[in-house]
Amino acid sequence: MENFKDSELVLAPCKYEYLDHTADVQIHSWGNSLKEAFEQCGVAMYGYMTELPSVEIKQSAYIEAEGHDIESLLFHFLDELLFLFSCEPNLICSRLEIQEFITEGEELRLKCKCYGEEFVIGKHPQGTEVKAITYSAMQIVNEPEKNRFELFVIIDI
Amino acid sequence: MENFKDSELVLAPCKYEYLDHTADVQIHSWGNSLKEAFEQCGVAMYGYMTELPSVEIKQSAYIEAEGHDIESLLFHFLDELLFLFSCEPNLICSRLEIQEFITEGEELRLKCKCYGEEFVIGKHPQGTEVKAITYSAMQIVNEPEKNRFELFVIIDI
Repeated sequence: MENFKDSELVLAPCKYEYLDHTADVQIHSWGNSLKEAFEQCGVAMYGYMTELPSVEIKQSAYIEAEGHDIESLLFHFLDELLFLFSCEPNLICSRLEIQEFITEGEELRLKCKCYGEEFVIGKHPQGTEVKAITYSAMQIVNEPEKNRFELFVIIDI
Repeated sequence: MENFKDSELVLAPCKYEYLDHTADVQIHSWGNSLKEAFEQCGVAMYGYMTELPSVEIKQSAYIEAEGHDIESLLFHFLDELLFLFSCEPNLICSRLEIQEFITEGEELRLKCKCYGEEFVIGKHPQGTEVKAITYSAMQIVNEPEKNRFELFVIIDI
């Protein structure tokens, strides 16, 4: 250990602060159909908010989403799932089943049954708060001929 | 609790992953001189990496930094401090004293004595890993006539 003068051991007063912490994470999901890739993407979002094995299937809810293209359909789908969690009934879901999935025509829409339970602090480990879904760098791979269905979505956390 | 069919309780296999987690934090520091604002900025960075009250002053090291303007001087200063931590002697510092601080002329430079100790997991709570210093939205407020000396730096974490 070096020797220091007393004056060298005096710490400066704090003249700093931390601002504007921003972060995001990209979800990549896939499936044997675009529908499955959507379901996987929604579950992935919930999996970021808690540890999914802690979630029991005790109740369900339906959400509906619309969009003028697949990107906006995905955005609104995730946004509805986030809403289901953020507001009553504060549902966290480990299983999603899209029952209607219309991705052609003027107005795209889907209806999804969401299985899970009310989020309870203590029972469900708190993961990271999802603040918003974004369109940033969103990618939809929808190639039935290659059996490739993949989604890339960035969420703000 | 709702009643569900057995098939409704089967969870889907995992077909997703999380990519590219990115985050940053902005440090805002100030002082009665630009030199003090620099010292504060460096300490603030270390304060993000651990809890500073856990850091004892046991050893010291010198760093030098150069730049062609104040922005690049600040960048290289923080980068040297990060290097001091990331490589031998893995120093985490609670006190910085800039002893030479030349911010005019062709080549700006500084020399700083850095007081602290080797980072030891267990003794020092692990804060957030600082991955890189950035020039993004960097601001230098250097207004001696108003006694305003402030720095804003975004670091990647």
